[in-house]
Amino acid sequence: MTFDDAALTIAASGRHMDAKGWVPATAGNISIRLGPEDIAITRSGRHKGQMVPADVMLVDGDGASREAGARPSYETLLHCGIYRRFVEAGAVLHGHSIANTVLSRRAGASIRLAGYELLKAFPGGPTHDTVVDLPVLDNDQDIPRLQRAVDALWDDAPDAPPGYVIRGHGVYVWGADMHAAMTRLEALEFMLLCHLEEGRHSR
Amino acid sequence: MTFDDAALTIAASGRHMDAKGWVPATAGNISIRLGPEDIAITRSGRHKGQMVPADVMLVDGDGASREAGARPSYETLLHCGIYRRFVEAGAVLHGHSIANTVLSRRAGASIRLAGYELLKAFPGGPTHDTVVDLPVLDNDQDIPRLQRAVDALWDDAPDAPPGYVIRGHGVYVWGADMHAAMTRLEALEFMLLCHLEEGRHSR
Amino acid sequence: MTFDDAALTIAASGRHMDAKGWVPATAGNISIRLGPEDIAITRSGRHKGQMVPADVMLVDGDGASREAGARPSYETLLHCGIYRRFVEAGAVLHGHSIANTVLSRRAGASIRLAGYELLKAFPGGPTHDTVVDLPVLDNDQDIPRLQRAVDALWDDAPDAPPGYVIRGHGVYVWGADMHAAMTRLEALEFMLLCHLEEGRHSR
Amino acid sequence: MTFDDAALTIAASGRHMDAKGWVPATAGNISIRLGPEDIAITRSGRHKGQMVPADVMLVDGDGASREAGARPSYETLLHCGIYRRFVEAGAVLHGHSIANTVLSRRAGASIRLAGYELLKAFPGGPTHDTVVDLPVLDNDQDIPRLQRAVDALWDDAPDAPPGYVIRGHGVYVWGADMHAAMTRLEALEFMLLCHLEEGRHSR
Repeated sequence: MTFDDAALTIAASGRHMDAKGWVPATAGNISIRLGPEDIAITRSGRHKGQMVPADVMLVDGDGASREAGARPSYETLLHCGIYRRFVEAGAVLHGHSIANTVLSRRAGASIRLAGYELLKAFPGGPTHDTVVDLPVLDNDQDIPRLQRAVDALWDDAPDAPPGYVIRGHGVYVWGADMHAAMTRLEALEFMLLCHLEEGRHSR
Repeated sequence: MTFDDAALTIAASGRHMDAKGWVPATAGNISIRLGPEDIAITRSGRHKGQMVPADVMLVDGDGASREAGARPSYETLLHCGIYRRFVEAGAVLHGHSIANTVLSRRAGASIRLAGYELLKAFPGGPTHDTVVDLPVLDNDQDIPRLQRAVDALWDDAPDAPPGYVIRGHGVYVWGADMHAAMTRLEALEFMLLCHLEEGRHSR
Repeated sequence: MTFDDAALTIAASGRHMDAKGWVPATAGNISIRLGPEDIAITRSGRHKGQMVPADVMLVDGDGASREAGARPSYETLLHCGIYRRFVEAGAVLHGHSIANTVLSRRAGASIRLAGYELLKAFPGGPTHDTVVDLPVLDNDQDIPRLQRAVDALWDDAPDAPPGYVIRGHGVYVWGADMHAAMTRLEALEFMLLCHLEEGRHSR
Repeated sequence: MTFDDAALTIAASGRHMDAKGWVPATAGNISIRLGPEDIAITRSGRHKGQMVPADVMLVDGDGASREAGARPSYETLLHCGIYRRFVEAGAVLHGHSIANTVLSRRAGASIRLAGYELLKAFPGGPTHDTVVDLPVLDNDQDIPRLQRAVDALWDDAPDAPPGYVIRGHGVYVWGADMHAAMTRLEALEFMLLCHLEEGRHSR
């Protein structure tokens, strides 16, 4: 995939997430991995509802800007952390929804989803009769330290699902490509909204 | 109706259901019966929000693809089961809404709807002063076995309404044509949302 | 206003109400009074989301069709009842919302709205510091009998607000013209949604 | 910024707020400060969903119309009060949402928001680990008297956040320009919706 096509795809995904209400204010960020040292990612501080390809820029595998003077999304290192750990990850989405914000604020270390047909959007066998424990991490403005917490979590739980929530801050989800990542995000947000509606609390 | 017109109608219906939030991820499927051995139905794994006629294919009355190498929706056999049982059925809709998911997870064998003006969208006399017991079946990834459970239900309750819910999975609704099926689905989802808002539980 | 302009206005209003979610299935109806014996009103059984001027027809002051073979909305007589009683009424809107359906099902003879800035959209002085008791009537498929109940209500309460709710069925609101009626409907539905969110019950 | 550009920006902002459901009926008003004696502001009584630049007019720093015969929004003096107090304010937004209406009706003198990542949209250090106490004032149809209450509040709390709520009436938010004000409004409404969902009450 070329950078130009990735920028088009990211901009369309931003507008889609805005239509869903998942990127209020300038929240949210989106990336596609083009190669080991090439990640296309949203610029800092842009509203996703009017996204155009010019709102996308290039960073390297450590999140350093490859465009002079340009600033990528504040949480670029979290995207890099996902790509570093999961070779199969090709696209990463981060959004703030009412459901993921409220549920993560009341959750303990994870949110358990069980019995939903849409769990099929997650790895672990093509069945609804499974359980996904979505990890919940405490929020931290020190992003390198937050990424170390995420890495520690993955070290302890190598079968963690392809997503996690930062408390009061939003969800990260990934997939082999943007279609897979967005399908997973839509499935997850739907299940979280059901979970919220059911009045389920922390575990 | 020609296959081409059916494909256009199905694609428009998919985009409509997506706008309502009833087909998250790649969920949902839609069909129109063209003849005893000709059913136009959504292909497997497509997002309904960007549906085009090319996302529709042809299967026979037993759900076998009539297009080499093409794969219809996973739950095609449930559509065939409806068409086999009800000669008057011309279109079938399957969607996942927050309301039908949450209510079916907490329900027993049915969800009782009573006193709504929109019950007039269901058979049984042109009045709101009626009761519809919407059957709820346990989810099952073995679709032929699930269809046998649906058939057993219909054998026991020949006056069952033109719809049922699979627990945690979504609703099936049908009508003489797509307009009738969609009208019924909109009425049903509206009543389920009221039901959810009223905090009503299983019966 | 000509019939053609009224038909355009009614069609646009139908699509607006559909975008708000107030006319599920084929629910809802809309009219404009052109003269003492000329009321433009929605035809029966059309979906409001794709309304065009051809979905509008002409009836006389008693609700009889002025177009051979055409059938107006089932509840045309309720529109006529409003126009007969209130000479200042120029447009009538009827919609089904989750809020008006759920609240009317749990209400007694009225729903009391108080302390909302948007009460200024109702007569009674330009202030929020007022009370509107929105009448709630039992549903009835016998429309002439239902209209007699509405008339009896107005006879008893000559200062009733320009709106009422039919239990489990929807709201009727009117104004001097379509803009006034729609402004009132939007204000009312907003307050009812607040009311529902506050968990307020019957009075 | 020219008046024409301000009018375009205000009209687009009105349509945006309408799409979010924050300006029901003819509620809401929007302004941009062009200079010490030049404020572009919405005219009285227009619906924001179809706003065009012609729905915007010019007032002076005291809210007096600078266009013969034209009437600005009823609450223009509240906009002027904000501009008079905060030299850095360049744009003001006023909207009615379900969340700000319901929460302000049950709140005491303020609504406390804490632990949200989106608090970064408010002054006080780039962190979620902060607290914003959003002031809540009683509603009053006497706008000069209401502005005196707002001024008294600011006199007592010079570090009040760039926003306040009028009970049962709506929120006022401002920023250096429209983009900043709208970003803040979107962040605030998102947090209020979370707050409402959490069932938090007055403080």
